Amino acid sequence: MGEDAGDTGGHELASLKHSIDDLYLHTMSIIIFFMQAGFAFMEAGAVRSKNTVNILIKNLLDMCKSAFLSSCKEVSSSLGGIAYWLIGFPLAFGSDGNFFLSYNFWANNNLPVKEYGHWFFDFVHAATASTLVCGSMAERCNFYAYLVYTFVITGFIYPVASHWTWHPEGWLKRTAFKDYAGGGVVHMLGGMCALVGTVLMGPRIGRFHKKTGEPHDIRGHSVPLAALGGFILLFGLLAFNAGFRGHISQSGDGEVISRAIVNALLGACGGGVGALVIHHAGTFGPTNAWSFLMTLNGALAGLVGVCAGSDVFPSWAALVVGVGAGFTFLCLHFLLLRLKVYLSGNANVGAVDDPLDAFPVHFGGGLFGIVAVAFFMEGGIVFNPSRNSAAVLEWNLVGALAISGWSASLCLALFGILKKLGILRVSREMEIQGMDLMKHAEPAYPSTAWEDCDPGPYGP
Amino acid sequence: MGEDAGDTGGHELASLKHSIDDLYLHTMSIIIFFMQAGFAFMEAGAVRSKNTVNILIKNLLDMCKSAFLSSCKEVSSSLGGIAYWLIGFPLAFGSDGNFFLSYNFWANNNLPVKEYGHWFFDFVHAATASTLVCGSMAERCNFYAYLVYTFVITGFIYPVASHWTWHPEGWLKRTAFKDYAGGGVVHMLGGMCALVGTVLMGPRIGRFHKKTGEPHDIRGHSVPLAALGGFILLFGLLAFNAGFRGHISQSGDGEVISRAIVNALLGACGGGVGALVIHHAGTFGPTNAWSFLMTLNGALAGLVGVCAGSDVFPSWAALVVGVGAGFTFLCLHFLLLRLKVYLSGNANVGAVDDPLDAFPVHFGGGLFGIVAVAFFMEGGIVFNPSRNSAAVLEWNLVGALAISGWSASLCLALFGILKKLGILRVSREMEIQGMDLMKHAEPAYPSTAWEDCDPGPYGP
Amino acid sequence: MGEDAGDTGGHELASLKHSIDDLYLHTMSIIIFFMQAGFAFMEAGAVRSKNTVNILIKNLLDMCKSAFLSSCKEVSSSLGGIAYWLIGFPLAFGSDGNFFLSYNFWANNNLPVKEYGHWFFDFVHAATASTLVCGSMAERCNFYAYLVYTFVITGFIYPVASHWTWHPEGWLKRTAFKDYAGGGVVHMLGGMCALVGTVLMGPRIGRFHKKTGEPHDIRGHSVPLAALGGFILLFGLLAFNAGFRGHISQSGDGEVISRAIVNALLGACGGGVGALVIHHAGTFGPTNAWSFLMTLNGALAGLVGVCAGSDVFPSWAALVVGVGAGFTFLCLHFLLLRLKVYLSGNANVGAVDDPLDAFPVHFGGGLFGIVAVAFFMEGGIVFNPSRNSAAVLEWNLVGALAISGWSASLCLALFGILKKLGILRVSREMEIQGMDLMKHAEPAYPSTAWEDCDPGPYGP
Repeated sequence: MGEDAGDTGGHELASLKHSIDDLYLHTMSIIIFFMQAGFAFMEAGAVRSKNTVNILIKNLLDMCKSAFLSSCKEVSSSLGGIAYWLIGFPLAFGSDGNFFLSYNFWANNNLPVKEYGHWFFDFVHAATASTLVCGSMAERCNFYAYLVYTFVITGFIYPVASHWTWHPEGWLKRTAFKDYAGGGVVHMLGGMCALVGTVLMGPRIGRFHKKTGEPHDIRGHSVPLAALGGFILLFGLLAFNAGFRGHISQSGDGEVISRAIVNALLGACGGGVGALVIHHAGTFGPTNAWSFLMTLNGALAGLVGVCAGSDVFPSWAALVVGVGAGFTFLCLHFLLLRLKVYLSGNANVGAVDDPLDAFPVHFGGGLFGIVAVAFFMEGGIVFNPSRNSAAVLEWNLVGALAISGWSASLCLALFGILKKLGILRVSREMEIQGMDLMKHAEPAYPSTAWEDCDPGPYGP
Repeated sequence: MGEDAGDTGGHELASLKHSIDDLYLHTMSIIIFFMQAGFAFMEAGAVRSKNTVNILIKNLLDMCKSAFLSSCKEVSSSLGGIAYWLIGFPLAFGSDGNFFLSYNFWANNNLPVKEYGHWFFDFVHAATASTLVCGSMAERCNFYAYLVYTFVITGFIYPVASHWTWHPEGWLKRTAFKDYAGGGVVHMLGGMCALVGTVLMGPRIGRFHKKTGEPHDIRGHSVPLAALGGFILLFGLLAFNAGFRGHISQSGDGEVISRAIVNALLGACGGGVGALVIHHAGTFGPTNAWSFLMTLNGALAGLVGVCAGSDVFPSWAALVVGVGAGFTFLCLHFLLLRLKVYLSGNANVGAVDDPLDAFPVHFGGGLFGIVAVAFFMEGGIVFNPSRNSAAVLEWNLVGALAISGWSASLCLALFGILKKLGILRVSREMEIQGMDLMKHAEPAYPSTAWEDCDPGPYGP
Repeated sequence: MGEDAGDTGGHELASLKHSIDDLYLHTMSIIIFFMQAGFAFMEAGAVRSKNTVNILIKNLLDMCKSAFLSSCKEVSSSLGGIAYWLIGFPLAFGSDGNFFLSYNFWANNNLPVKEYGHWFFDFVHAATASTLVCGSMAERCNFYAYLVYTFVITGFIYPVASHWTWHPEGWLKRTAFKDYAGGGVVHMLGGMCALVGTVLMGPRIGRFHKKTGEPHDIRGHSVPLAALGGFILLFGLLAFNAGFRGHISQSGDGEVISRAIVNALLGACGGGVGALVIHHAGTFGPTNAWSFLMTLNGALAGLVGVCAGSDVFPSWAALVVGVGAGFTFLCLHFLLLRLKVYLSGNANVGAVDDPLDAFPVHFGGGLFGIVAVAFFMEGGIVFNPSRNSAAVLEWNLVGALAISGWSASLCLALFGILKKLGILRVSREMEIQGMDLMKHAEPAYPSTAWEDCDPGPYGP
């Protein structure tokens, strides 16, 4: 190191900055990667014990897929044939492109290596969007349908919307549209896909009364597992908001990142406490329970809510947005349970069954945030009602509409086709027996491992 | 980046240092934040299944509160009215103040942004202190009492003691008092509050024989969950000790941080192995069990023990202090179970029931460390018995006494009033039924989620 | 900071580089440390509930041991007498030494402080190697035998092989032998020790039919716990591959580290998906199950496989190596179950019982990787078949053979002696009853904590 030290030129400094940025990106990426475990356990805790292994393997495969996709930068040049590199990556971030999509890097190794950070974050996003769908279709989704939809969402639906929002040529990027950490393009999009999927799939057997349509809670088998997932997600989401800046060596980076972390925390706090209090107050029907799961989902909704502007909210606004997102989550949660009944006036049908509340949490939280950012960001409508701040509101509404419409219509086609083909949902028998035994031959908690059973001819 | 690189001035370097320090603080803070999950699962595993959700929601709210408090820096200026900013923050770290407390920044936005690191660590500490109390009062504490005491401890009791120790004007700070990572002001204080709370609360039903006062183990429902919490805490505590330095870009920082991490590991190791061996040797009654929970609590006690001087202990001393803290934990653990019996000479009373061993681990470990640091720190009594090293011992004893007295007397008032008002403890019925069903309407492991129950009219 | 900023000399820059490297090493080390939790839960989930606490305490002690060893740098000078410093450390990394081992630093404080990073990684490796053995001998290993073998492996067997590979004087280090992150010296060595241990120990009661030798699955008690462990391991292994570079401030470091992370992810992905598909295809017997545990172990095998060259594989090659490692794992998994039958032609004997698949995953994955690196590294045989690339193959084969031979022969002696002394295996009674109750007096899930039992005289 001695000889280097003698060189005090700018080259040395630039190289050091590069090292710091690398360290920052690598550290945050590793922590963000752990979020896949968060999703896995949140979903595992929220399903019945008979489908636990099924949900775990889907999340492990999502992790693999995320790994796979995250590396396309280098792989794309060599592997070829894998749809994502041929489709998703070029569509979103090709250097040639128009307002709607881009169309180079198709199987190209010219992508500069320093794009790594950009790529990793984008692919974690893609994985998040499709993981949400996995939750909303839990306990009844066919394994092949899972493979297909996850491919289409991460390979086509998400990348195009991501191109709109983040590619320099994207039509939304060139407007006043403001979405720092993907409240719209990740969470609203994923939540909308989840809603369409679960509506076309239909509710789980036993979720609604066959005659009256009255909802009947199907509880998850382990609150502690769900809580574990929730805590890991909160942990990862801090790194997510911290990492989105993309670099830390420029002047002012540190403060933006501080603010993003603090706002993420406050959003979670506002959403969690807000949902707890609002729910306990009996706003949505008589109860005197202090609900843990409502608090946890509220905290996640709050975090999703502040994503759109965690870099520009004053702290108190992050809290307010968190509460608003938590409230939106509760409204949508209870709305879904009654939706079809309201629509049809005929009680003799089931309503929407979203076991993980993917739509209320992610679409609801995301939508609230994408609107709220126009009001509460520094220089927003609340502080300075002007042409500029109104433009953010306009374009965010347009963006929210476009993203919702895009994902809803494509998912309608996607899940509609899968349904027509009869491979969307598992058989009635398998749904009742559970998928762990029938599909994976691995019960989550094998009874023989819990007792001193007689080993018979295998015995001592 | 090119144009910046041309500037080789000191400004550029200072800015880079700032970036490195920011990255260091953010990374450590994110990992430290995960400790709330550690506390949550350690406590969840240590209670019975009927109170699992109750303890999880308290920890999630502690996390929210911690988020809330951690952001007061910015929020204080705007939100107002929230007691912590009006009370806790100014009391501890106002820039005007006297030896006992400070009294500005009451609702003030003049707090410089670069105080973020300082703040975050202090508030994680505040959250830790009140989380300990949550553990010691587990399975019988009223939810409203929880809301009140957590507010008073984090808003008043802790901040004043923190002012004494860490504020430049604090009366302890201006002496030879030595406490690097809060062994005294966090762990002893939290442990003492926990003790007063659990004594005034009384033991759980069934913990002591009604006639003889003989203790009867109430086991936690899941050792793996407790182990998960313990491992996460060890993970977070490494970051805690690493992060306490506050900056990493100054010359010598790296080595202090290395030492703090290594000493934290060694303290945990000494405490864990020490407690295992001492307990197995039958020191506290006949046993031939190799106890996992004793090892885990011993490791935590060891970690708490080295906090006071993890930056200044030679490595072998960290090991010794860990063993000593583990031994102190065991002594207090067994003392508590017999305490009232010893005091009264009358067996016909129950003794102290501290389900999480918050007092033995945190007060015991902290006290041992705060004394030991005077002996084993570099330049301490063992190495160089001098006026200076004796002064550390004197002032650490004075500080320990002051912190214990302050927290004990205020908690006595706090919990005494709550008890008088009859809102300290849940009803006998709720305690026997468990709080998950009665208060939260959410069993941790719903039986219907574990079987193929007949869904009746909701069925297929 | 102002006065420093005025100094723009090289000294300042060198000091900043040092800070960045420290931060990098500390952060990665803290995350790597969390891997001990990963091993703990993977093993806990894979054993029966009656042995859960037993496996948790062993992993907690491994963590302590790892802490202990990781600090030997400073401790060695003072504590003395502890075998590792007297034996392991000097053998591996003394500054005086020959091709086989080194022999100074015996109780020496001259080891420079800046060796910390080097040390920490080496000792995590040592801990990993012995943790593997813990898994393969699960549910029947004597606690004293555990204490002995863990001491010998981490104190002698591993350090000597580590000296060969990584010490500048080591005989393998001075050849073309290529092993970036310990695929050979850690994973093959640990896997081989695990095999010898489990063969000499014999299978668990009930694992094979007494007459026919037909294997009978003994399932672990909790797939979610095993999954938790697996996710944590994947999380930690990313940091492991990232951290192995040792510094991040030199030019080019960032890209090597990026590549190592991406390749680790891709290896896991290839191994996991590969094992899933190959197993589901019925390659090893009729099945139509999508097995989660095979996927998880395959992912780990893939990660182990790329360790040897994660810094030099092109991304597509990492994927290929991952698939190959996953396939190797499956082959060895099914081979072990039939091994003795094949060898003897007599069905009336049991075969090899490796509850955690330590040998198939770590030896198999490691061996595949150590061979594959010669083919698929940049400039390897596939790209440029030359004398140089052939030399890597030759020396990697020699190294693999030497490491396997060394560990197999010493473990044969070690476990043979323990068996002769009759302390290798617990009694038949204890094995059937489970060790949690008999040895630790702590059931993992105490039944009394799950019900509203009548507290009798301890009652209300």
